[in-house]
Amino acid sequence: MRIGVLTSGGDCPGLNAVIRSVVHRAVVDHGDEVIGFRDGWKGLLECDYLKLDLDAVSGILARGGTILGSSRVRPEHLRDGVERARGHVRELGIDAIIPIGGEGTLKAARLLSDSGLPIVGVPKTIDNDIAVTDVTFGFDTAVTVATEALDRLKTTAESHQRVLIVEVMGRHTGWIALHSGMAAGAHAVVVPERPFDIDELTAKVGERFEAGKRFAIVVAAEGAKPKPGTMEFDEGGKDIYGHERFAGIARQLSLELERRLGKEARPVILGHVQRGGTPTAYDRVLATRFGWHAVEAAHRGDFGRMTALRGTDIVMVPLAEAVETLKTVPAERYAEAECVL
Amino acid sequence: MRIGVLTSGGDCPGLNAVIRSVVHRAVVDHGDEVIGFRDGWKGLLECDYLKLDLDAVSGILARGGTILGSSRVRPEHLRDGVERARGHVRELGIDAIIPIGGEGTLKAARLLSDSGLPIVGVPKTIDNDIAVTDVTFGFDTAVTVATEALDRLKTTAESHQRVLIVEVMGRHTGWIALHSGMAAGAHAVVVPERPFDIDELTAKVGERFEAGKRFAIVVAAEGAKPKPGTMEFDEGGKDIYGHERFAGIARQLSLELERRLGKEARPVILGHVQRGGTPTAYDRVLATRFGWHAVEAAHRGDFGRMTALRGTDIVMVPLAEAVETLKTVPAERYAEAECVL
Amino acid sequence: MRIGVLTSGGDCPGLNAVIRSVVHRAVVDHGDEVIGFRDGWKGLLECDYLKLDLDAVSGILARGGTILGSSRVRPEHLRDGVERARGHVRELGIDAIIPIGGEGTLKAARLLSDSGLPIVGVPKTIDNDIAVTDVTFGFDTAVTVATEALDRLKTTAESHQRVLIVEVMGRHTGWIALHSGMAAGAHAVVVPERPFDIDELTAKVGERFEAGKRFAIVVAAEGAKPKPGTMEFDEGGKDIYGHERFAGIARQLSLELERRLGKEARPVILGHVQRGGTPTAYDRVLATRFGWHAVEAAHRGDFGRMTALRGTDIVMVPLAEAVETLKTVPAERYAEAECVL
Amino acid sequence: MRIGVLTSGGDCPGLNAVIRSVVHRAVVDHGDEVIGFRDGWKGLLECDYLKLDLDAVSGILARGGTILGSSRVRPEHLRDGVERARGHVRELGIDAIIPIGGEGTLKAARLLSDSGLPIVGVPKTIDNDIAVTDVTFGFDTAVTVATEALDRLKTTAESHQRVLIVEVMGRHTGWIALHSGMAAGAHAVVVPERPFDIDELTAKVGERFEAGKRFAIVVAAEGAKPKPGTMEFDEGGKDIYGHERFAGIARQLSLELERRLGKEARPVILGHVQRGGTPTAYDRVLATRFGWHAVEAAHRGDFGRMTALRGTDIVMVPLAEAVETLKTVPAERYAEAECVL
Repeated sequence: MRIGVLTSGGDCPGLNAVIRSVVHRAVVDHGDEVIGFRDGWKGLLECDYLKLDLDAVSGILARGGTILGSSRVRPEHLRDGVERARGHVRELGIDAIIPIGGEGTLKAARLLSDSGLPIVGVPKTIDNDIAVTDVTFGFDTAVTVATEALDRLKTTAESHQRVLIVEVMGRHTGWIALHSGMAAGAHAVVVPERPFDIDELTAKVGERFEAGKRFAIVVAAEGAKPKPGTMEFDEGGKDIYGHERFAGIARQLSLELERRLGKEARPVILGHVQRGGTPTAYDRVLATRFGWHAVEAAHRGDFGRMTALRGTDIVMVPLAEAVETLKTVPAERYAEAECVL
Repeated sequence: MRIGVLTSGGDCPGLNAVIRSVVHRAVVDHGDEVIGFRDGWKGLLECDYLKLDLDAVSGILARGGTILGSSRVRPEHLRDGVERARGHVRELGIDAIIPIGGEGTLKAARLLSDSGLPIVGVPKTIDNDIAVTDVTFGFDTAVTVATEALDRLKTTAESHQRVLIVEVMGRHTGWIALHSGMAAGAHAVVVPERPFDIDELTAKVGERFEAGKRFAIVVAAEGAKPKPGTMEFDEGGKDIYGHERFAGIARQLSLELERRLGKEARPVILGHVQRGGTPTAYDRVLATRFGWHAVEAAHRGDFGRMTALRGTDIVMVPLAEAVETLKTVPAERYAEAECVL
Repeated sequence: MRIGVLTSGGDCPGLNAVIRSVVHRAVVDHGDEVIGFRDGWKGLLECDYLKLDLDAVSGILARGGTILGSSRVRPEHLRDGVERARGHVRELGIDAIIPIGGEGTLKAARLLSDSGLPIVGVPKTIDNDIAVTDVTFGFDTAVTVATEALDRLKTTAESHQRVLIVEVMGRHTGWIALHSGMAAGAHAVVVPERPFDIDELTAKVGERFEAGKRFAIVVAAEGAKPKPGTMEFDEGGKDIYGHERFAGIARQLSLELERRLGKEARPVILGHVQRGGTPTAYDRVLATRFGWHAVEAAHRGDFGRMTALRGTDIVMVPLAEAVETLKTVPAERYAEAECVL
Repeated sequence: MRIGVLTSGGDCPGLNAVIRSVVHRAVVDHGDEVIGFRDGWKGLLECDYLKLDLDAVSGILARGGTILGSSRVRPEHLRDGVERARGHVRELGIDAIIPIGGEGTLKAARLLSDSGLPIVGVPKTIDNDIAVTDVTFGFDTAVTVATEALDRLKTTAESHQRVLIVEVMGRHTGWIALHSGMAAGAHAVVVPERPFDIDELTAKVGERFEAGKRFAIVVAAEGAKPKPGTMEFDEGGKDIYGHERFAGIARQLSLELERRLGKEARPVILGHVQRGGTPTAYDRVLATRFGWHAVEAAHRGDFGRMTALRGTDIVMVPLAEAVETLKTVPAERYAEAECVL
């Protein structure tokens, strides 16, 4: 059997672990041939690939990033490319394609699958926003990195009587904010799912100081927003250069809280460090299992589906379901976290 | 409501996170009173306890160990003590007892529950051997510590052309060995569930060297055993001092592999470092959720049961079920790990 | 003997280790009494202090921050307070004061020392900018945190073909940038000591991409500046809210490099995480030694001086010297780092 | 210029950083050619080498081990090989040899240097036992790994009322034991330099428990020994299999302390994990500087010497001096550590 693998979309710790697992399972146990397309779908559309044998994946298990490179491809661009993709698959004699990626990648995977290509997807997102799987690799690493940073920030906030607003990843969902906030014992968490009331938030933080505490840590998902009208908010979050990426809920929130509380408030933006570097043991195990089961699915001819974690089992779910809904943080999970919302 | 908490059995990262969560949820959200019994069941039997308010649990979330102390109590000893325990519960006006512990502790919890005491259990084991929950806190930390050690050992083994046999925790189950071995890319994993064939193991390791590799890492759960008759094995594993704890599968295996392969082989015993220190973010979140749900169960009067993780949900399961069977590593999980067995 | 300790200035990993060491050496080995002034000089001026016995410093060795709290006091404010300070020292019967702090603190220490108070200083700076000592505690931790972040960022930059500009601490000196850049293998380092030439920097980064590399990492000390006239630069670095702290060399540099190279460039600002949290083993040892020697100096009546590291020895140097010059990064150190400058 | 590099002796974090630095400085800045001999001196004697260009050292900075491999060669073996070595150097047209290694390697380096070969040594030891340099790379990493383990062990020892005897590396010197013990706040440290008195040690540990403490941590360098006659001690430390490596001061000490104190005592042997894996930022910087200066020395024709750290400077010292004396822990350093001795 000849298998093509590719990684697409944003970086995510564990991508290399999946690639390695696919190659090990396919080559060692099935005697398959594996090739890797460079830079995601682009590699398939341009027939740009490399042979993946055991040596090619030696030593990559714990390495961040992806040896195949990645890229973001516009769906419409891909739509025009379906025929080209089908052609290359025919030429290369590929029996199965294993795309590893997030929502966008899985949508593209479904598109190609519907056009008849033999696709087995592997979901990937540090945001934990894919509904049909309990979790995917990358999320645990992101939470771990954010938590270690919060652990460090607590001591420094305490000795200097500050409010720190720590911005973590999560444009549409607050999972990283919720879990890192719970893990580090933050005093408030704000997330995209439910716009926060700045008065409530100010009150909650203020109470800590009245109670004699010397600091407070607020974790803010980058997509968090205030309730309309409760505070002036730079919606588009564009900076003077017109760059979206500098909007910054943490910056705006720190200014607002400083003004309202009369306490020094500082923003900390963790940024890309959350999606780079060595995956945690948890993510390496999950990624390895996903890769293994993707190969098995390919050999069963179980196409048009993707790997998912349910409890402790790896199951296959239709790509169609995978991209239907975003997994947002439910109300009861906030309650557990004793958060302001 | 008045709640008594205790921690019993071996150390496990996350115990303090549960205690803190119980206190926060009970005191802040329910206005309950919480006391902590010292050194496990001993504290209940001897009525030795301290008041747990918010200050008492401040700053313990990320700290290893348990602020309540722990101890191992012999079941028969506890059986004799049931009446005493009931008496103290009455005197202290306790409405719910939340014991946090492993198999032994949960057996004791069931005993007391059957005698009519209001018990809500919280399972704890770094070994991941409790069947009714997907996982418990402590396991992820143990696997993480073992994996970091394996990551370090790989480079040194490689540059010095060695076989390293790394002994990790797991007297009865191989979960830590399996997960850390998968996460670190070990070349063989031996576990208690299935005695290994030393000839197969030697062959597998030997093949690596024939293939030009310069090293091999074997992960051995402390309870791993060879198939009877395949190699001389110090069953009881007693040393010249008659101490059981120095038996050591890693030591015996390194001697045997060195003899058979004519390659330098060295044992590394990770030991207690796997069950101490700061819990991972994953374990802190799980422990915090367990504590929260234990308090809710107490308020519902949902006694005789314990918290468990199923998928992403925390559910309550009867204590009776909890201790019936040991969760061992199933065959298909080994297949995924490409292990010798 | 009665000793007063205080911590002043910005946070720095190792402060608690010094406090603990002072108390251990003084109380255990000399039978001294130790008190700690709260929030730096403020505590001395307002006679706000706590007794420091062995229990008070138990478990703080590895904890970041300072149990005594800190504050920044304006020199002129202190000048007016000299008499008050002398009065409190008399009342409390203090035989020696051990202030732990950076440049500002040591200047204040010298002021009080000149006024006749028995002062033994302990230098502290994560910036490594105190000339009379090889290094102080805090610096190694800051470099370690920055290096771990850079390690993570390299993999993600590589898989996504990006330039990352990583802003590390250092308003006046580039030590953290230089060491973390060397340790992580950054491709360029810009520092306050020598304004960079944006054309050279662009060329150096550009060459990497022409040579087929897929990414580049530039480490920028927060105080780094371009050569006048080589690029538009927001000197004061004020943002639309007029806050200095959001100026950001990394942001401006990323915009400029993106424009010039036509490659995606992103800023990452590490911020406070560099000065918080558990100190490295190196910093704990150095901080412990400083505390020990400060107590010895007090017992020798060796006042008006501060502890310093010279090679492997702890020596005492006059406070006068300590604050004379800033230790900047010399040219030959850049050469070693193969940096653009 | 043509430079030959080799790594010899035990593993040490930072070896790859030196190799990389030598190649970068030599190739990029001097246009030199660099080759690497495989497996230490063996590679020179057998003319087994590979070309080292920038690609060959890409990505190795933070990796443990050595890409050149290492081996221990018997001096007499080398003595016989001097002529062979000289011949290969001539054939290969090598202008400078840079051996990176510990005491044995430097002795060999001196031997070859005296025979007229152009040698520039780079010292390496995790034990910190080379007298002519303040420190070498590898030591900081070993201390860091040991300290992290001790941090973890403290919490578990505390919650279970135990004495833990933690064996760290150091056959002839106690530097790792001293620094990790100081950094982690151990309660006693025993080292090879001064045989310990078991009665004093027992008393010191016993006092902790009498004072109400619930645990004690003793750090023991593997070469630590009791004063003759104070306790039964398995000198050769051979186990029932006649293997020296299982002697174990920690094991014997735990048995003795358990017997004397009637408290549970457990040995923990950290082992090879201390010399493997990613080097700390400190060691990466020092290793990089050593490599850089070794190349400069070669270009100056400054042979027969080795790099050394003095304060913050890298200096060159004669190989002759380098191996004369072992750097042991002086008495005043113990005093600082408040150790039993």
